[in-house]
Amino acid sequence: MSTSTFTIAPAQGGVTAPAGFSSAALHCGIKAEALDLAVLAADGPASAAGIFTTNLVKAAPVLLCQSHLTRTAGHARAIVVNSGCANACTGDAGAKDAIEMARLVGDALGCDPHQVLVASTGVIGVNLKMDALRTGIPTAVRSLARGKGGDAARAIMTTDRAPKEQAVSVTTAAGTFTVGGMAKGAGMIEPHMATMLGFLTTDASVEPALLQRALVDVAKETFNAITIDGDTSTNDSLFGLASGASGVVIDEAGYGALVAGLTAVAHDLAMAIVRGGEGATKLIGVHVHGAAQESDARQVARTVANSLLVKTAIHGADPNWGRILAASGRAGVPFDPLKAVVHVGDVLLFENGLPHDDAAPLAAQYLMGDTIRIDVQVGEGTGEATVWTCDLSAEYVRINGEYRT
Amino acid sequence: MSTSTFTIAPAQGGVTAPAGFSSAALHCGIKAEALDLAVLAADGPASAAGIFTTNLVKAAPVLLCQSHLTRTAGHARAIVVNSGCANACTGDAGAKDAIEMARLVGDALGCDPHQVLVASTGVIGVNLKMDALRTGIPTAVRSLARGKGGDAARAIMTTDRAPKEQAVSVTTAAGTFTVGGMAKGAGMIEPHMATMLGFLTTDASVEPALLQRALVDVAKETFNAITIDGDTSTNDSLFGLASGASGVVIDEAGYGALVAGLTAVAHDLAMAIVRGGEGATKLIGVHVHGAAQESDARQVARTVANSLLVKTAIHGADPNWGRILAASGRAGVPFDPLKAVVHVGDVLLFENGLPHDDAAPLAAQYLMGDTIRIDVQVGEGTGEATVWTCDLSAEYVRINGEYRT
Repeated sequence: MSTSTFTIAPAQGGVTAPAGFSSAALHCGIKAEALDLAVLAADGPASAAGIFTTNLVKAAPVLLCQSHLTRTAGHARAIVVNSGCANACTGDAGAKDAIEMARLVGDALGCDPHQVLVASTGVIGVNLKMDALRTGIPTAVRSLARGKGGDAARAIMTTDRAPKEQAVSVTTAAGTFTVGGMAKGAGMIEPHMATMLGFLTTDASVEPALLQRALVDVAKETFNAITIDGDTSTNDSLFGLASGASGVVIDEAGYGALVAGLTAVAHDLAMAIVRGGEGATKLIGVHVHGAAQESDARQVARTVANSLLVKTAIHGADPNWGRILAASGRAGVPFDPLKAVVHVGDVLLFENGLPHDDAAPLAAQYLMGDTIRIDVQVGEGTGEATVWTCDLSAEYVRINGEYRT
Repeated sequence: MSTSTFTIAPAQGGVTAPAGFSSAALHCGIKAEALDLAVLAADGPASAAGIFTTNLVKAAPVLLCQSHLTRTAGHARAIVVNSGCANACTGDAGAKDAIEMARLVGDALGCDPHQVLVASTGVIGVNLKMDALRTGIPTAVRSLARGKGGDAARAIMTTDRAPKEQAVSVTTAAGTFTVGGMAKGAGMIEPHMATMLGFLTTDASVEPALLQRALVDVAKETFNAITIDGDTSTNDSLFGLASGASGVVIDEAGYGALVAGLTAVAHDLAMAIVRGGEGATKLIGVHVHGAAQESDARQVARTVANSLLVKTAIHGADPNWGRILAASGRAGVPFDPLKAVVHVGDVLLFENGLPHDDAAPLAAQYLMGDTIRIDVQVGEGTGEATVWTCDLSAEYVRINGEYRT
């Protein structure tokens, strides 16, 4: 990051908080009831960036977005999002449907359809109700306005317990710009369902390549540092749009401020996804330090965060350092267990190869809270990383094990 | 494997079914009640082999066994096993306790203590009650006898729902030998608990190096092909002892028969561990084929078998091919999802990029059973592998999330 100075302050309005963006949301008929269609539009061509699922099984809209971003060299006018259907594993028909969604928006907005990005979330293996979209999309585009970001955040929900939106303003020597965002995701929700979607907007002026770089840097510490159940969806997408409407130009000198602003929004959205995880009652931050390098620390943190035994122990407020240590030890990263140190909150539970079981009652008390920090030191190196997860409850099993009716 | 012909038949008696072995079991006081100490002894020095946890955090008895097997070049007279305490993360005191356990057996049997192997299972981070063992071990050694393998299998249990033992006889051109075995393990059981222990005996005459090779080959398709929750314990150990008492000498020509006999016993024990997994109601075999190589197939199978979403779906009898495909796609093995084929039992659910949802009711019916086969074809290669797991139930969360009292 650069050394530019800047300040960050809360702002209102989610994805339409930054100037140059409008949104619309409505119920078009993909779901039985509830909002199921959102359009997010820029007043003119915006710089656009995207990060997509690494799963080999990619939904049709993911493949379409990758193609469009390449073709336009990182420019977009709008993103159209439906909930209730993931348009994944839908074959050639699904690919055509995604193309038609972009065309419907392009026709209504009067722009090149390649400048439209598409996201879908919901049931896998079911085709989109295109009749509903053929009516819904033009209607939505006609109602685009600022100040309706909250409805868009609701329209992209599946079984999320609450909408997730956030905005901040960033003041730098070059002026003030705003960053907004919305996201959805709660694990795998309906049967056949799989998605995390994130949308970040800013009215800063950012070249597409720089915006993409910022999006990757931001995702690494936010959306890519969370895990609910270790399963990677077919539809995961994170979008960044920069309208330039604030007149604040971000170059290398302003890069740190841009990343900080995007991170402030993305971090809050990512934490909201974890807190809203299926059956979750606690947010758990697993911090690993002392590794030889950051990637090692991240690998250990991710293994601990995905351990069923750690997640169930935390759910039960059990200060089970043995499970934390055992998960760390199978992460594939070499370290000397005799030099490992395990804390839960500020409570030291394991050091010099020996437990501090006298501290267990204090740690158990701490684990009754809803925000938990686990700290594992694996050596004397400088590598550190944090991965966020939630606890594993019987409710998670109920949600994901109920037979579809 | 060699091409020697042989036949396998069931036998009775667990670890003492093969000639040349005796066992004893008693309650020495590590647990409040119930058998907690077992000794398995060979009449004379036996060939010995062992495979131990790959976790960096290794319990004291694991480190001791590795040292003893190296020092004796693969020979042992006895294995002493306690349940109720894992002797893991117990520092120097724990290492001394493991050494004393071996010495107590050596003194009672009149053999070199380095020819004694040690295994412990139970709570992590708690020291052994050595007073109980100082009385119990000599008493156990005095009562060594054949025909008591069942008691030994019970004495190594923690919260296993049932003892696990098995034996077969193998008839080859060179004569008949017997293979016996016992095992324990049900996931992570008590708070702070972590272990799978397996013990295989045979009265064939096998050089230590060949026995070790056989143990590795056998474990690959049995104990190392199962997963309950993806967590690797600090105490996992699999032992092989060959007494030679049958007079049947196993060399390269007989290697196939040895592996087949050991596999017959180990497979049954491994399946019993999975069926007895914490909260488990179903045994699930995930078979992956068509990969470029076996290791690729195994990696995909393991990822599917450890997917919480797949395990909860099977628990709920939900024929959720989308979760199976999505888990396959994130396994890190390249394949073309359009060519993937997913079956549940004999029911085709996904092919040519498209679902067969008309078959879902049939698949749901199949998933009501207690033995489930999932089959994923990922290409046209010859690599295939099967990984066994169990379903994930709310009961698993209850068992592992209850706060220690």
